[in-house]
Amino acid sequence: MNNYIKNPYAIEEKSFEIITKELGDRTFPQDIGKVVKRIIHTTADFSFADITIISKGAIQQAKEGIKSGKNIYTDTKMAMSGINKKRLSEFGGKVLNFVSDQDIALKAKEEGVTRSIIAMRKAVEENPNGIFVIGNAPTALFELINQIRGGNVNPSLIVGVPVGFVGAAESKEELLKLDVPYILTRGRKGGSNVAAAIINAILYMIN
Amino acid sequence: MNNYIKNPYAIEEKSFEIITKELGDRTFPQDIGKVVKRIIHTTADFSFADITIISKGAIQQAKEGIKSGKNIYTDTKMAMSGINKKRLSEFGGKVLNFVSDQDIALKAKEEGVTRSIIAMRKAVEENPNGIFVIGNAPTALFELINQIRGGNVNPSLIVGVPVGFVGAAESKEELLKLDVPYILTRGRKGGSNVAAAIINAILYMIN
Repeated sequence: MNNYIKNPYAIEEKSFEIITKELGDRTFPQDIGKVVKRIIHTTADFSFADITIISKGAIQQAKEGIKSGKNIYTDTKMAMSGINKKRLSEFGGKVLNFVSDQDIALKAKEEGVTRSIIAMRKAVEENPNGIFVIGNAPTALFELINQIRGGNVNPSLIVGVPVGFVGAAESKEELLKLDVPYILTRGRKGGSNVAAAIINAILYMIN
Repeated sequence: MNNYIKNPYAIEEKSFEIITKELGDRTFPQDIGKVVKRIIHTTADFSFADITIISKGAIQQAKEGIKSGKNIYTDTKMAMSGINKKRLSEFGGKVLNFVSDQDIALKAKEEGVTRSIIAMRKAVEENPNGIFVIGNAPTALFELINQIRGGNVNPSLIVGVPVGFVGAAESKEELLKLDVPYILTRGRKGGSNVAAAIINAILYMIN
């Protein structure tokens, strides 16, 4: 038991080797493979290789957005905390999340809707060309889709991976219909950890 | 699309109804069921019903620990951010994570080991009877197991759900051998989101 690998870089390298091996014949274009493998690394769930959908050019657009210093808006503190903020800050961007702000809680209570909805409205107002990351709340993704349909938003990337049983799958089917750069996980699965893994995979691709 | 459920309480209630229905004949003792269902709620992954193992009396001991104001020590900021800290504070406890502390980073670099290992040592020194939550780093769980075997620690609960391909499964098999209160997920799966869900499930059980 004292012989386990303790070096963090060796652990990560070995993990990606195992993932690549177990994916076997399932190969992906380079950048897409990096996203899919990092999701599997985070979840140990190979089903993400089947349900991860990346719109054409989305990774390239996201890289450009990050390099130009775009901010990232998340639906939860948890997704925020999983993103490599140090790496992001090298390009001038920040990760922001409004869900615990007092004005958000108040408005959500008034309207009887989730705080995620109100927080997403605030994010879109602050930067309609930002990177929007939804790992938990389908309501936040539905709100974002409404705003895009209303012509208010032209995002650099949408990470649409809400998880769960009420609205998650449906919200992602709506996102699939839009002509915007997106990365999503079809069906019920996703999560704040998956959302953060996707952003980190892209951050680590940028030289 | 504008008819989706927007009320957070209604969403959660409906989700748990669906989970209970889809679990079908698979029933659990009340408290254990609450933990298992909250993990599924967080991951949309029913395989956790098969791999979640809770040692006898662990939930009761954890409740008592929380009620007596014990602190919770996590291996990642992400697990920390997912735990309902407001609810925990009602009992006097705090969630702590040392992984980003400067002294931890320095020592980890010196020893060539993960920051999680050094952070876990600090947690154990601060409170050997605390609640220890490991959602990411097998190295942290191995370290904790070593400390328990060394007689230094008598935890109120160990949440042992590291995820991944190198050491995660093995660390949990070691935990299974110990006579301490634990909740773990056998095999590769787990995660910071799962770790937070387990703690929140227990927090919501306490009246």
